[in-house]
Amino acid sequence: MVKKELVTKLINKELKLYQIDELVSAKDATDIRRKFIEELTESNLETIGDFSIDMEIASKKNIENSIGTIQIPIGVAGPLKINGNYAKGEFFVPLATSEGALVASINRGASVITSSGGVNAEIISDKMTRAPVLKVESAKKAIEVKQWLEDNFSKLKEIAESTTSHGKLIKIDPVLIVGNLIYPRFVYSTGDSMGMNMVTIATDKVLDKLSQKLNVHIVALSGNVCVDKKPAHLNFVEGRGKSVVADILIKKEIIEKKLKTTAKAIEEVNTYKNLIGSAVAGSMGFNAQYANMIGAIFLATGQDEAHIVEGSLGITTAQEINGDLYFSVNMPDLPIATVGGGTSLETAKESLSILSIKGSGDVSKFAEIVIATVLAGELSLLAALSAGHLARAHKELGRA
Amino acid sequence: MVKKELVTKLINKELKLYQIDELVSAKDATDIRRKFIEELTESNLETIGDFSIDMEIASKKNIENSIGTIQIPIGVAGPLKINGNYAKGEFFVPLATSEGALVASINRGASVITSSGGVNAEIISDKMTRAPVLKVESAKKAIEVKQWLEDNFSKLKEIAESTTSHGKLIKIDPVLIVGNLIYPRFVYSTGDSMGMNMVTIATDKVLDKLSQKLNVHIVALSGNVCVDKKPAHLNFVEGRGKSVVADILIKKEIIEKKLKTTAKAIEEVNTYKNLIGSAVAGSMGFNAQYANMIGAIFLATGQDEAHIVEGSLGITTAQEINGDLYFSVNMPDLPIATVGGGTSLETAKESLSILSIKGSGDVSKFAEIVIATVLAGELSLLAALSAGHLARAHKELGRA
Amino acid sequence: MVKKELVTKLINKELKLYQIDELVSAKDATDIRRKFIEELTESNLETIGDFSIDMEIASKKNIENSIGTIQIPIGVAGPLKINGNYAKGEFFVPLATSEGALVASINRGASVITSSGGVNAEIISDKMTRAPVLKVESAKKAIEVKQWLEDNFSKLKEIAESTTSHGKLIKIDPVLIVGNLIYPRFVYSTGDSMGMNMVTIATDKVLDKLSQKLNVHIVALSGNVCVDKKPAHLNFVEGRGKSVVADILIKKEIIEKKLKTTAKAIEEVNTYKNLIGSAVAGSMGFNAQYANMIGAIFLATGQDEAHIVEGSLGITTAQEINGDLYFSVNMPDLPIATVGGGTSLETAKESLSILSIKGSGDVSKFAEIVIATVLAGELSLLAALSAGHLARAHKELGRA
Amino acid sequence: MVKKELVTKLINKELKLYQIDELVSAKDATDIRRKFIEELTESNLETIGDFSIDMEIASKKNIENSIGTIQIPIGVAGPLKINGNYAKGEFFVPLATSEGALVASINRGASVITSSGGVNAEIISDKMTRAPVLKVESAKKAIEVKQWLEDNFSKLKEIAESTTSHGKLIKIDPVLIVGNLIYPRFVYSTGDSMGMNMVTIATDKVLDKLSQKLNVHIVALSGNVCVDKKPAHLNFVEGRGKSVVADILIKKEIIEKKLKTTAKAIEEVNTYKNLIGSAVAGSMGFNAQYANMIGAIFLATGQDEAHIVEGSLGITTAQEINGDLYFSVNMPDLPIATVGGGTSLETAKESLSILSIKGSGDVSKFAEIVIATVLAGELSLLAALSAGHLARAHKELGRA
Repeated sequence: MVKKELVTKLINKELKLYQIDELVSAKDATDIRRKFIEELTESNLETIGDFSIDMEIASKKNIENSIGTIQIPIGVAGPLKINGNYAKGEFFVPLATSEGALVASINRGASVITSSGGVNAEIISDKMTRAPVLKVESAKKAIEVKQWLEDNFSKLKEIAESTTSHGKLIKIDPVLIVGNLIYPRFVYSTGDSMGMNMVTIATDKVLDKLSQKLNVHIVALSGNVCVDKKPAHLNFVEGRGKSVVADILIKKEIIEKKLKTTAKAIEEVNTYKNLIGSAVAGSMGFNAQYANMIGAIFLATGQDEAHIVEGSLGITTAQEINGDLYFSVNMPDLPIATVGGGTSLETAKESLSILSIKGSGDVSKFAEIVIATVLAGELSLLAALSAGHLARAHKELGRA
Repeated sequence: MVKKELVTKLINKELKLYQIDELVSAKDATDIRRKFIEELTESNLETIGDFSIDMEIASKKNIENSIGTIQIPIGVAGPLKINGNYAKGEFFVPLATSEGALVASINRGASVITSSGGVNAEIISDKMTRAPVLKVESAKKAIEVKQWLEDNFSKLKEIAESTTSHGKLIKIDPVLIVGNLIYPRFVYSTGDSMGMNMVTIATDKVLDKLSQKLNVHIVALSGNVCVDKKPAHLNFVEGRGKSVVADILIKKEIIEKKLKTTAKAIEEVNTYKNLIGSAVAGSMGFNAQYANMIGAIFLATGQDEAHIVEGSLGITTAQEINGDLYFSVNMPDLPIATVGGGTSLETAKESLSILSIKGSGDVSKFAEIVIATVLAGELSLLAALSAGHLARAHKELGRA
Repeated sequence: MVKKELVTKLINKELKLYQIDELVSAKDATDIRRKFIEELTESNLETIGDFSIDMEIASKKNIENSIGTIQIPIGVAGPLKINGNYAKGEFFVPLATSEGALVASINRGASVITSSGGVNAEIISDKMTRAPVLKVESAKKAIEVKQWLEDNFSKLKEIAESTTSHGKLIKIDPVLIVGNLIYPRFVYSTGDSMGMNMVTIATDKVLDKLSQKLNVHIVALSGNVCVDKKPAHLNFVEGRGKSVVADILIKKEIIEKKLKTTAKAIEEVNTYKNLIGSAVAGSMGFNAQYANMIGAIFLATGQDEAHIVEGSLGITTAQEINGDLYFSVNMPDLPIATVGGGTSLETAKESLSILSIKGSGDVSKFAEIVIATVLAGELSLLAALSAGHLARAHKELGRA
Repeated sequence: MVKKELVTKLINKELKLYQIDELVSAKDATDIRRKFIEELTESNLETIGDFSIDMEIASKKNIENSIGTIQIPIGVAGPLKINGNYAKGEFFVPLATSEGALVASINRGASVITSSGGVNAEIISDKMTRAPVLKVESAKKAIEVKQWLEDNFSKLKEIAESTTSHGKLIKIDPVLIVGNLIYPRFVYSTGDSMGMNMVTIATDKVLDKLSQKLNVHIVALSGNVCVDKKPAHLNFVEGRGKSVVADILIKKEIIEKKLKTTAKAIEEVNTYKNLIGSAVAGSMGFNAQYANMIGAIFLATGQDEAHIVEGSLGITTAQEINGDLYFSVNMPDLPIATVGGGTSLETAKESLSILSIKGSGDVSKFAEIVIATVLAGELSLLAALSAGHLARAHKELGRA
């Protein structure tokens, strides 16, 4: 129940929005703030206020100044057959989106994949990173710090790992030097959580040690060489989060019957659009629409929405082989989790349960499902574009 | 009410998921599919099934194979004072996120801004684009097609605009040529809708004409020079969606009191992290965390989540001026809407109403609110990083 | 004759190197300085001193503190048949290089081209640019300056063109804004000279006017948006210098006989190396070796060696068509001249005369010859790589 | 002496250009070909024919179809004081260029440096790379090959090193996978030679072994991940050739007196032009003019002119510190040699001797001299731009 007098105090600026949390339960605070916003802005926030997740939990970990929830529709695509090392069998994939036709398109790709015996999915590497920026008095000194980091690695590893039960410091590499600035990239394995908080805390502890031992100025705990939530070629090469690949060989007959096109036509669209088109556009996304699939799975399963940026980097390849199609998607930088963050919200937890992912121990399986879904959507769109192209080609020939 | 027998038919593969829509209402179809998934995967999707948006509407425009909705908590940050050309006054900004501390951080930035008299926001340009890839027999012929597009622009403009009541074809430029491939970039204004569908339909119509008149092979309706949902330098230079800028001058006293740091320290963090760090990392995001703010506003207001990718590109600048701080954020590629797509979902509509955005006529105002919020979050994080740095500097000096 | 006493004065630091020019002829000054360097560093600079160009002229325009010349061997590749709009017929191309096998490789490409009836070459656009960086007090003001530049274009064009007899100001576009910084890109046509000096002087004059009229701070005459002598995606899209394309269709029989490979194999190498390899490497050069050909022609003909950087950007395409090969090279950013700068040195002038280029009026012809030569070298290398690949494939099969 | 009848045979196409080499000495063949070209193109190649290097030697290693040499003027800049680990003391740097004012500008920078006690130069790393592209049947198989390369590294190292007396295989890393394609980057140390030939031969030998052991298709010996002679972000991060840095602290008084500007003004030009300007332009060269210095030293000392492309990548930093200026240049990708290739031409050898570089054992010293010279030129230009800016500022204020 909304306490009228607290709403009034908010309007009279006698209370700040966050101070409500100290006076009532999280659910009530949510309602009071929403009521305040409704009055102030003369709006009706009925649907935002009509939610079913547990705001007591969300308020502790996921949100401040809550007023309710937004709702985004979920559909499922499947069955999608996956031949992974962790994900094995047929899956229905939960997808949260408001873009009409997206689920249908992924579904079509899933159908082609499943008819073809399934998509292969592989994890190439798995890591999470944090790279501070440090400043010293000269480049000479910067090189000395780089050397010190190498020489003292096992000690620093111990310090870093003292802050976490799951995280392991794998390496500090590369250590980039720009004049008197140093950007050491701390690379960790982080288990089933996405790991950004873990690596931030661990790296901070190492920096404490560093600044005790050496005369180093810690400019910022993140120097943008991590690279978190920004598209960056560094992550393309070095990898971040899960580096994954998926591929499939699709028979000529299936391409013709289900996709109404040819392997050659799909190869051409991929080369002219995803490779050459992206090159002239100065793009880092040598693909057609990874962001759509990544976005929809990320929202459904409680991943950090800002990670869609780096998560959708990657290259699609297509090769016609005697009428059949070899098709692959490659994602070097997929930061995901099955525990922590937004994955603890009820709807996310339920989405994960559709994939039989219960939390711990399943993040590799989840990574394989994500990339398999990306392949389904990518294949479907390229096929549709190339079928349009075939349709047009027929019309064009019809003119002659 | 869930009809048991339809669930059974799904399990027995006598029906496909999408076929349910033809037999029952969208709401019932949603429940039947969810029940099927629950049985098949032995999961409990109670919260996903407990939603309050109107699935009849969503099923027509936003989702296929629906099983319910996900919920993401919304908080508000504000008051945020904006001195825009369209957004004028104080706003509370709805932010949907599961990343704890984000709303609080943006709120802190908003407080500094409002204390400083408000943030300035300006729209530099406004456009939406679609760039197909065409193929002809030679580069010579490609140049002729480029010339033909120029010579026949007014006719093509008429054709394009015959498909839409709001869209205007502004130019076809650049027309990039790579051997016998042609990438003409169709640039439109699209009013209050984000416009991707509009420009796709209009461009398709022009291509029909083109392929009637010239012997041109239309490889794909999108050739990745648009550039839609991928990070691309082309959009940095040419702009896409709204190109916006926001800036502010913050007094020394406020920086010290509210942000516990100095203008000089913020300038340094910006230069070493956002500029030099991003340069060595090969990043297109010369900023600290635009993606966080863009993601949270996009989800709250029903924008396409895949547009977070291009929407979060941009450069932050910081200049110390006699102890004060000049601070700006620059976003060349912000694709947003106040009508159509996910904005018609009830929770999104309600979020927009918090900003007094009713739909038509308000997209410029919304753009200014978005970038003002980005500045609030960016300022807050850079200040926090630099304050950490000051804190450390004190500790470092303490040792001496 | 070397005046001993001047050498002695140099050694005793009674004279500075450049002061010799005021006392004796350029040739003598060259000898005196060389003698001084020989004595000081105990070196023998006999070959550097044994030159045949006219140092009086070079000293006025091309060099300071001269001590002689370096010599780089020139070879010729040809006949190379070109079907351009300006370059028509067979050419022998002068190439200055110290990289063994390069001329032979280009020669092999030329032979294939000539056997195939010649390479087509086309100029897409022609421009030279200068982009200063300006600073004002706010983004709002920056947008006003952008508007002012648009509104006063015809006046500014007049001012710019008052400084030159050949240069024309085509447009000021794009005008990029980053906070309170403005980067207007002045785009000129410059006739047969490369034009950097011309556009610098003209732009400076416009800036004088600008700073008289508006309260604009001119930070630097070049703000790196030109983009001169750096690899930049902006030049890829907007073009700089000559934007040129060359292509050819090569018959199956010629590929097999002369290149010992197949069209399909060349297409594969191009896709996997030049397109996908470059993409993962974060490269702007989607080609195999443009820099080699550009370097060798530039040195032979007196172009600015630092322009090799931008001049070698570009994309190669290869398409197998029924066993034949469609092959193209695309160079958006080729800054060249047939008059001025190093082209007035005797050996450069002679190299140009081999191509029947006499100076004025021939720069378009020269551009077509340059890109035709690039295609020859690129084709030759890709064919060689793919032939190696075929050879290996045979060996690999032999094992089976 | 030119044998008339051979010229006639060339004209009558009874002989090919390269066949002359089999009949007469290299010098005579050069003269005959030149005479042929002169007759065919009605040109006079007198200066090209008037050279003093030994064409017998050049014809064996550096050039085919030679007709003479070009000459490019050399000037010297100095004294330039360097405090390196290898280069210690004052140097006069040989610079071959036809761009007027370049040597003078570098000379001015050298003077400031020497007055300030010298520039510091450091080598961060030293390596040369070759990265082939391999193809297998699937991504799964590609990952197996990657694993095999790791597991068999010591054996492969032995094979690689059996082909060379100086080269050492340091690592095969990264091994990038894109679908069924593999790009293993072979990283070597190569002593005083630039090393491209060495690493090509060694890598080829390893590939022989690989294709014997595994069913791997070697598409091309270079897959553009090397990255040779193209601008690529990979080289920025991983380094190639020498990765070097130089820095200096310049006193306020010297800046004012010698450069007529202030540290603050230089810092501003660097931030707005080299950092922000380059960012918006999508440039990989976060500097003002490295290419000019690199080009001039490379030509003077016989380096491969095509390496100017990658050699001029890098970032400049500038920091005002209490009126003084901390200034650094950073070059991650400098491929240079003191033996082999063009360094054996007489004029190049003499240029190197000016620096007391005799060949073997001096490449680190040479690297330090190169970057010290780059700093001299970069500082000089930024100072000139900022002085222009000061001059203008005065004019602007004068108006008030």
